[in-house]
Formats: sequence, C-alpha cells, structure tokens
Amino acid sequence: MKINVSIFGVSGYTGTQLLSILSCHKNVNITGVFGEKSLGKNLNDLFPNIVNLPKIKVTDYKKFDFKKCDLVFLCLPHSKSQFLIDDLGDCKIIDLSADFRINNPESYTLWYEKEHTRKSKLKNFIYGLSEINRNQIKEAKYIANPGCYPTSILIPLIPLFKEKILSDNISIIIDSKSGISGAGKNPSEEKLFFEVNENFQAYNIEKHRHLGEIEQEIKLYNKNVDLTFTPHLLPVSRGILSTIYINNNNYAMIRDFYSDYFKEDIFVNFLEYGKYPSLKGVNGTNNIVFSLFQDFYKKNLIIVSCIDNLIKGAAGQAIQNMNIMFGFEENESLNLKYLSP
Amino acid sequence: MKINVSIFGVSGYTGTQLLSILSCHKNVNITGVFGEKSLGKNLNDLFPNIVNLPKIKVTDYKKFDFKKCDLVFLCLPHSKSQFLIDDLGDCKIIDLSADFRINNPESYTLWYEKEHTRKSKLKNFIYGLSEINRNQIKEAKYIANPGCYPTSILIPLIPLFKEKILSDNISIIIDSKSGISGAGKNPSEEKLFFEVNENFQAYNIEKHRHLGEIEQEIKLYNKNVDLTFTPHLLPVSRGILSTIYINNNNYAMIRDFYSDYFKEDIFVNFLEYGKYPSLKGVNGTNNIVFSLFQDFYKKNLIIVSCIDNLIKGAAGQAIQNMNIMFGFEENESLNLKYLSP
Amino acid sequence: MKINVSIFGVSGYTGTQLLSILSCHKNVNITGVFGEKSLGKNLNDLFPNIVNLPKIKVTDYKKFDFKKCDLVFLCLPHSKSQFLIDDLGDCKIIDLSADFRINNPESYTLWYEKEHTRKSKLKNFIYGLSEINRNQIKEAKYIANPGCYPTSILIPLIPLFKEKILSDNISIIIDSKSGISGAGKNPSEEKLFFEVNENFQAYNIEKHRHLGEIEQEIKLYNKNVDLTFTPHLLPVSRGILSTIYINNNNYAMIRDFYSDYFKEDIFVNFLEYGKYPSLKGVNGTNNIVFSLFQDFYKKNLIIVSCIDNLIKGAAGQAIQNMNIMFGFEENESLNLKYLSP
Amino acid sequence: MKINVSIFGVSGYTGTQLLSILSCHKNVNITGVFGEKSLGKNLNDLFPNIVNLPKIKVTDYKKFDFKKCDLVFLCLPHSKSQFLIDDLGDCKIIDLSADFRINNPESYTLWYEKEHTRKSKLKNFIYGLSEINRNQIKEAKYIANPGCYPTSILIPLIPLFKEKILSDNISIIIDSKSGISGAGKNPSEEKLFFEVNENFQAYNIEKHRHLGEIEQEIKLYNKNVDLTFTPHLLPVSRGILSTIYINNNNYAMIRDFYSDYFKEDIFVNFLEYGKYPSLKGVNGTNNIVFSLFQDFYKKNLIIVSCIDNLIKGAAGQAIQNMNIMFGFEENESLNLKYLSP
Repeated sequence: MKINVSIFGVSGYTGTQLLSILSCHKNVNITGVFGEKSLGKNLNDLFPNIVNLPKIKVTDYKKFDFKKCDLVFLCLPHSKSQFLIDDLGDCKIIDLSADFRINNPESYTLWYEKEHTRKSKLKNFIYGLSEINRNQIKEAKYIANPGCYPTSILIPLIPLFKEKILSDNISIIIDSKSGISGAGKNPSEEKLFFEVNENFQAYNIEKHRHLGEIEQEIKLYNKNVDLTFTPHLLPVSRGILSTIYINNNNYAMIRDFYSDYFKEDIFVNFLEYGKYPSLKGVNGTNNIVFSLFQDFYKKNLIIVSCIDNLIKGAAGQAIQNMNIMFGFEENESLNLKYLSP
Repeated sequence: MKINVSIFGVSGYTGTQLLSILSCHKNVNITGVFGEKSLGKNLNDLFPNIVNLPKIKVTDYKKFDFKKCDLVFLCLPHSKSQFLIDDLGDCKIIDLSADFRINNPESYTLWYEKEHTRKSKLKNFIYGLSEINRNQIKEAKYIANPGCYPTSILIPLIPLFKEKILSDNISIIIDSKSGISGAGKNPSEEKLFFEVNENFQAYNIEKHRHLGEIEQEIKLYNKNVDLTFTPHLLPVSRGILSTIYINNNNYAMIRDFYSDYFKEDIFVNFLEYGKYPSLKGVNGTNNIVFSLFQDFYKKNLIIVSCIDNLIKGAAGQAIQNMNIMFGFEENESLNLKYLSP
Repeated sequence: MKINVSIFGVSGYTGTQLLSILSCHKNVNITGVFGEKSLGKNLNDLFPNIVNLPKIKVTDYKKFDFKKCDLVFLCLPHSKSQFLIDDLGDCKIIDLSADFRINNPESYTLWYEKEHTRKSKLKNFIYGLSEINRNQIKEAKYIANPGCYPTSILIPLIPLFKEKILSDNISIIIDSKSGISGAGKNPSEEKLFFEVNENFQAYNIEKHRHLGEIEQEIKLYNKNVDLTFTPHLLPVSRGILSTIYINNNNYAMIRDFYSDYFKEDIFVNFLEYGKYPSLKGVNGTNNIVFSLFQDFYKKNLIIVSCIDNLIKGAAGQAIQNMNIMFGFEENESLNLKYLSP
Repeated sequence: MKINVSIFGVSGYTGTQLLSILSCHKNVNITGVFGEKSLGKNLNDLFPNIVNLPKIKVTDYKKFDFKKCDLVFLCLPHSKSQFLIDDLGDCKIIDLSADFRINNPESYTLWYEKEHTRKSKLKNFIYGLSEINRNQIKEAKYIANPGCYPTSILIPLIPLFKEKILSDNISIIIDSKSGISGAGKNPSEEKLFFEVNENFQAYNIEKHRHLGEIEQEIKLYNKNVDLTFTPHLLPVSRGILSTIYINNNNYAMIRDFYSDYFKEDIFVNFLEYGKYPSLKGVNGTNNIVFSLFQDFYKKNLIIVSCIDNLIKGAAGQAIQNMNIMFGFEENESLNLKYLSP
C-alpha cells in the first residue's frame, strides 16, 4: 500500500529533514511540495544529496489538487498553519508547527499572546506524542506534532503520572539545553556563527511557550504538579538534553518501573545504571535515550533525557505518527543509519 | 613594591593562564618556574605569545632557594600539593588544586576517597573566595583557591545566607555546565575533539567533589540547606554557566539586595532586569556576571551565573587573592582587555 | 546471495563507520568481529545506535574459522595488516590501512621509513580507487583501500592523464584540509578538543605519506608531473576538501570532459558552473563532489573536491569495492540518507 | 601627549575590536563615537566588558566638532567612507574599509565593479601595511588600512621582491583560509551557525577583491609575478592562515633572509625550522607568525602565515599605524595578553 503525501515548507530545517527521511519510505509517494522561496525549482536540484527524490518541482499549493492527497505535512513557521487548514480539503494533516498543540483558546492566548484564528479546530487535533498517545493517533485525522523540548520531557514524565507512580504534590524543575537548529533558519544576528560559537546562555526563563504544552499534557494525569522550565542555547547544530529534577526519592521503584515500561517501544532507550545519554548518542536517530539518577543526598530524582530535535523532536516523530495513523510498520524509514562512530 | 613569585605546573591550562596574566603585573617578579615536562626550557621559547616574560628557564624546584620567594602558586594536579607543602620553606602559598579546600579530614576522605596526607595543615588554609572572604584573605598565609564550579555558585549564594536573606529550610538545585578546559590537559579519549564536538552530556551526577566545597561554605551560614549539584560538559574551550534554582519567591526583595550588595566589587556584575549572562560575556575576564529570574509560576528563584573557568574560576581569582594578601590594587593586572567583540 | 564477512578493528573510527553501513547491506552476513579493546563484548552493547547488528560478540580472531568467511575487512592501525595477512586463509581481503597501497618495497621504505615485512605480497594488491580501477577490482582477491586524501585528489585527476587530456609537463599543487577523524582515535594532546577547537594549521608539509600513493597512481599514466601536497587540520569532526592547482588553461575543454566522463558514476558529482563543493554537501554520504574553476588571470585551473573522509575516504569506498568484487549493486547499502538539512 | 580620536562604526566586529584595544591606549582620548544602530546609547552600556571606556554616548557625527579631533577611524562597510571623507574637516584618517586601498580609479572599477565617487582622493591615501610602509605612514595624513587576507600575504612576500630576492618571472599560488568574522556582522543565511559549523568551503575563486590589493602592492616591486588567490571559509570565529606556494627553490638563502629581515619588527615572528604557525598561536594578538618550508621534491617554496583577522588584519594594524603616524611607541596598547593557553 502506498499513500500520496505532500509537504509545506520544505526549505526550512524541519521540512528538509522530513523530506530526507520520507524519500526512502516504502509506503509513501511524495506528490506535492510547496514553498515560497523555492517555487518552480526541481526538488533534485534543491537537494542534490537527498536520495530517492521524486522528479517533481516545488509548486504553488493553490494549484494543487488535494483530493488525490492522503496526508499533508505542515512544516511552516508558527501561526501559518491556522490560515492554511481550511484549504486542504479532506486530507489528513500532521502539523509540525505549534498552532494546534494547545487545545483550548484561552491557554493559546496565554502562551502565544494572540487570538487563535481557528479556535473551533483546536479540539480536533490529537497531540502526537507517539509512545504516549498511540491509540488516539491511530484513529486521528489531525495531528499536532509535539514541540522538541516537550518531546524530550514528556516521554519520560507522563508514564509516572499516568500509572500513578507519582501521585502526591510534586515539584519538577526542568533544565533543558538545545542546539541552534531549534531556532529555525531565518537569519538574525543572535544566530550567526560568531555569536553562537564558544557561547552558551539561558533564554526565555520567565516564559517559554513550550511550558504550556508540557503543563497541558501532564495535568491530564495529575493536577498537583509544579513545573519550572528553563531553556538554554547550546553551540551545536542539533540535539536536546533535558535534566529533570523531581522532589522524590523512590529511586529503586521508579528504576524498575522504567526498565519495564518502554520495553516494546523501539525508539525509547532507558539506559542501565550508571550510563549517561549524550547528544552524540541520539543525533541522526529517531530515538529518545534517557537515564535515571539520584543526587548525592538522595533528595531528588534526576532524569537526563536526549533526543535529536530535528528527528524525534520534529520530522522523525511526525513520520512515526504517520506510520501509526496509516498502519505502517512504526519504524518504517526510521531505522536511520547511525553515521557518527 | 615588588614581590618575588614562583609557579609550579606552568604547562597545564591553569598554570599557563596564570603566567600569561601575572607577567604583566607591576608588583610581581616571576623568579621561579617549575615543571617536569618542560624542565630546562626557556620560558620565552615555551610561550612565545605571552608578553613580558622574564628570561628564565623552567627549573627543578628542589634546587630553588625559596627563602628569596614571597609567594608560591601551586598549579598542580590534585593530591600533588599535599606532598610539596613541606618543601616550600616559609613562603606564602596559593594552592589552585583541591588539596586544601576541604577543611576537615573526614570530609576530605568522604569526597576524595582517600586519606589526606597533611591533615594538620588543613586548618591553616583560608578558602580563597575573594569577594566573600576578603578580610581573612588579607591576613592569610595559605590560600586554598576555590574550584571553578563553586566560584560560579558561591559568590551569588553565600550573601543570601550570610545576611540572613534566606534563613529557613531551603532547597537548592544547581545545574552547571562547563567548557572542556575544566578537565585539564591530560590526553584521554573522552576529551578528544571528535568526542566533545557536537556533543553534550551530564557527568558525575551522583557524586561530584565540588559539592563538598559548596556545602562546606554554605553551611557556615545556614545548616538547613539541601543541595543538589549536576555538572555537564559543554563543547566549548572555556566558560562555566550555573543555573541555580531556589524554592523561594521573594524575588523583588532579593533583586534589591543584590543590586546593592556587590556595588563595591569590581569583578561582580549583577545584571539589570531581563538581561542574560553568557559565556561570551565573561570569557577572557576575571568577572562573574549573574542575573536573577523567577519561573513562570513564581515558585522558584532562578540565578544564572557565568565565569571564565580558567580566570575567575582559577588563575584570575588566585591573582586577585594575591593582590588582597599583599595589599596591591585588587584589580592589578586583572583589567583584562576583552577581545571578543 | 549473501556472503560472510568479518571485520578487524571495529572500535576505531573507520571500523565503526564500516560496521554501521555494512549492518544494513542485504548481501552481507557479519559473522566475525575482532578487536582487542572490546574482546568478549556483545556488538549490540558496544554500538547501541547501530541498527540491524547481528547478535555476536567481539572474539579473538585466532579462534575464528576463516574457511567460512568470504571477505575480511582490515580496519587496523598502519603496519598491523602486514602481520595478519598470512593468518586469514583463503579469504578475500579489503585492507583499509596503508600497508599494501605502495606496490614496491623501495617506495614503501621511502615513504614509511621502515622495511615492509611481506614484500612479496605487495604486488598482489589492487589499489581500490573504485571509479578508476573498477575492472581490476572486479577480478581482485586483495584490495588496498586508498587513503582519504588520495581519494579526494585522484578521482578528479587521474582521468585527465589516463585520457591524455593533460599530456605535457604538468605542475600540480594540492592544498588539502581534513577533519580530525582522519587522525584516528588514539588519545594525544594535539587531538584534544581544547587544542583543535578554534584552531587551524598545516602539518607534514615536507613529507606526508599520502604523497607516495598519489604519485604512484598518477605516474602510471604520466611520468612528467610535478606534485606538491600540503595537508592541513580543520576543526571539524569529518570531511576533506582538496584545492588542486594545475598550470593549464584549457578550462572549457576540461569542463566538457568532466561533464561527460563521470556520467555513469553514481557517487561522483561534478558540479555545474559557479557551484562550490562543501563539507556539508558530502558528509554522511559516499559521494565525491568536485568543481572546476580558473583563477582571475586564467593561468591555472583549480579543482575543488570534497569527500567524507570516513565514508568515501575509507569505509564507504571499501564497501563499494566489496560490491564491485562480488557483483552486488555498486550502491548497495551506500545510498546513505543525508541527515543534515 | 594625548590625542583626541573618534570612531565610526563602533558596533561592527572591527569597530568593537578597535574600541576594546584603544580604550587602554595611554596617548588616546576617545572623544567621539558614531553609529546608527546604537545612537544615543552610553558606550559603557553597549560594551560592559570593555575596560577603561570614556563616559560618552554614541552620537550623530553631523553634530560633532571635528576641529577638536586629531584622528578619525572609519570602521564602516565598504563604499561608505567615500561619502564621509569630505565631512571630516582637517582630521587625519585611518580608513579600515576598502574604499581607498586601490590607488587608481580604473583598478577600483575593475575590482569593485562600480565607479569610485572620490577619485581625486585615491592618491592621497597611503597603504598602511605597517612593517613595509612605515616611513610613508609616519608622514601620512590619510591611511588606507590593508585588507585582512592581503596583510597575511604581503608582509612575508613584499620583502622578497623589494630586496630583489626574487627577481625573475615568478608564479605564486595563494591558498587562504579565514574565520567567519571576516564576513562581518550583517545577518545572512550563509553566516548562520548551522551553516558554518562543521562546514568548510572555497568561495570567490574566480575573482576576489583582495587580489587587487595584493597585486597592486607586489607589482610596485616586480611586474613579472603571476598571482592566483583562493579564499576559503573556516568554521572558526577569527583567524586567517595563508599557504603560499612560490615556484622557486632557493630555500636556504630565503630562510637566512627572513631570519634577519624582520628582527626589529616586534609583531613579526618568523618561526625556526620545523615549527608551524597556527590560529591559536596568533589569535588575540597583533602578531603575524610565518614559517618557510619546501615541498618533498623541492620544486616550490611554501610560506605558511597566520594572523588574527580582526587585530593584525584590521583593528590592531590600524592602531599600529596610528602609533607610527603620531610617534607613539609602535606597540603601545598592542602588547595584548595572550589568554588562550
């Protein structure tokens, strides 16, 4: 079985990453590719290094017949998807932007500081955290693909609440560090090599939009959780590491819990005692690798979690969600060869 | 007034950094330089880029007359200073290693996992955190120069306890990130460019020796503090950033406190509201730059603090301590030209 | 059809890269893996990120039955292969070290400054420059896999001599730049992150062993070529760029020649006018990408050529050679997904 | 003696570097600082890490009284200086842009592809290559500060022609590599961290403006020189390395020549046999470090030369020129502390 797929925003980091993985998917025909910057160009000229590309051009989506399309990936800057969604006919949609992740309009306004323009559609989207929401994703028509930080944080955390491992008042401090590709390709002084190289800093400490997603998804299972989230910018091209502090000392029990919980999830790797996740250990893959520690005085549990922000944190998870939606093998096209020895 | 100074371990990162700053100090003659690797070589041949070096060779300290020396800097790997200290005559000493930072033998054994070999000397050393212990440093003969992580953490934290700003039970989580020079110059696979480049990871989460120092110095002022400390390795040559979470919400009061407290300290820069410290903002200087935030839900205060680990975290603070000990201008030779625009 | 393959030196950069690509090859069973450092360990534990690994352990090659093995890859430090070759029974061999690249003993001694220990075997090895020596590789039993620098240089240059495009006295200056992985994984001070980061330098200008290979292969076709070769060390993990100056001004003719010559070679990409190869354009692939320019005064042709030193410059070309030797599709397992958008 | 100095373009990389060095100059009062982006801001707020800054604001140069100013530094993008020069009264000028480096209008048009707007002024500017043109600089009113690439190339090359060491037809191939700060601070996609990091490429091979300068200055001494110049972009913040190939084999004689020639030049360091210059060996200093090699077959001489592009290649050399013009110590404020051990 093959489905027809089209992609918006193929020139951004996320869109190009999606294209490079999807081009080798055995159940997918890429039939439409849209983008303003590269309108009219051959896909093969734009991306000479991506193998198996179809011989198509970047076109104007307004002239595209979405009736022959089974699935659309939206890899657009935030707030663009809201305006597009009514133009896509009856296609299934996986939106990689933040537009439909927050499922109520007031929260959206709180976090994004503007009105949502398609409020009624918010409830139609399933939050596409593959390992956690697999059953809903199977039935979904519309997927809001999770943010990169939330993916690294929620996959380890949600099971603790969903399975009532942590049920009391809990205080969680999340200290996250991301490579620069998370900030997108739009040129600005603070993303220049000279500014990022040999540098490191925190940003948006007092309010980062991803906290809205993290909180929404955790509070489905436990309302009594205090969350603090601090993002930092790493001088690397890709990768996220989140260090998560939980005021709890049930170390042995939670280690046992994790050892068992993700056994069937091929993209989740809970490390054995004493091993540390690292960016090099996940970059280029769709894996999330995490480990559990306790501090010297055994006051806090510490989870350290790593993903490739462009793959598991964006394009890879989007394809995983597609595989789930259409009943393909969950890892089809996602057994990425690990090239960094 | 000029003093005669000698340096052990001039080829390591810390020793070379010390030499490069000290060579321009107007009150210092560098009269002895010791090191095994470079024994017999001219200082000017070893360090062609350091200006104002004296025309001396690296010699064997056993043949050096320490009677004509006022001060010795020890820039040696940990546990070497213990064996040297009896050979230095009546010289003043600033030890940049960890050997005399922990002031009781049991704690030393807890953190360093071996017996100290000069236990009786431990009490003779002053912990050289310049801004905090200035009065004791003035009178000191022996200084234990603080670790790099503790310097970035203790300068903002201690005043809160010393001045009783935080007096109840307090829980502090410290998430620190350091450049690779903190790990020294001894070759090993995990310090190779290929391994560090494009990588990031946590290490020694369950026990890092610097927690011993941090705890010792804070508990001088408040016994009821829980401390969690997690170090990470950044893919940069130098710089430390510590993100410090305190379960307290007296944001406005503490902001006022800090705005006033360090006014006279030329190397401490408490940033105004909304500004973020960064490695680029401190590297190449003896400054500590820090700022105060609160999280979105105002449950925690968040201090973000940056230093150059080789300067304020090692060689620079050592020279600052010398300046204090000998009554020189505190910033003599430390007004480093900031070369990174 | 499937062949049984074993690998020596799987823990080095080249060996791990080979394993990561070979594990997905549809015509290959990896039946033996040898290495001192990791003896006795499970392959899957050693390389948790490599997909499709067989469930075997690293073993002692002396206990391995090479009769059931069709092909051995030697990914060992230089001079080790010489001692192994008599222990491998009747297996075919692809040697990724430099031991059998120079085909006469005197030249070997000139370049490697020691006696070869298996002189009689030198003539049995085919120089495995896939695109150039494909016909001989098809029939070969033993392959000496080319060096990384020579691969980037010889693929564009040899056709000019082989096809008599350049037949007079020719002077060629080759200015090459390589990422650090070319220097291997053995720890030493000059490969530390602190030393390589933000640095760049030339090395071995007056004598680099790869010049021996380059000269040997070019002089098969034209004796009157003067060659100058200068390597430099780039602060990147992988990738080689060679800038090649030829004192000739037949720009248009040679552009036409190249446009046609490599049309059938799927891993060779001669760029159209005005485009520049880059490390990012080849890293992660088995491609060589090159372009042709002339200088402002049209005195010299300038070829700029890029490869991934660990793939086309080592493991990838070795697998390409295997594919040619055994009649597999030449690009089997080598259509590597390009992950860097 | 103190002079009054003003600076245009203080927010660019070159302007900020100039300010950071000049602020410690004992013969200089910085009395005016001009810039559009930061108009009205306090210098100390803009550059909190630069020591000894005067308490002045960035102002509009049109309201500044240039009569009280002895010297103006122009750190502006190319083509802006042409329009300013008539507004600066009788001040001396050091122009760090390219506007007045080419001393005849036709050549300017050839290299810059537009008409010069102040043709008559071109002859008034001295090319400020400090070590080579020191005598003319002493008497100069207007200095055109050399380009970064030309500085790294001309300081070693010109003496060979000026002193008739190379007098025949000579062919020189220059392969240069520069850090990203050479491209300035204006945001564009190709300067983003994600694009530059782990990348390397050649650019402007067929025509780079700096070749115009290089040729002009060399042909003052020898008309029969063929020059080929290829620039490359390194993934580092600062530093240039030029590898220069000369078709000559008078190695011993030229080594002797160099060993003697620059003995009095404190910023020129000709390395002894076998030593290699490196970016780390010059960055942060006003030095040029170079060495001489010959290739294996002794057909070519190879000069390898390094400078910090922002210091010796721009701001440092500008200050050196000021020191020469005004009779200050040539190294005043330029004995920069070398901070990278």
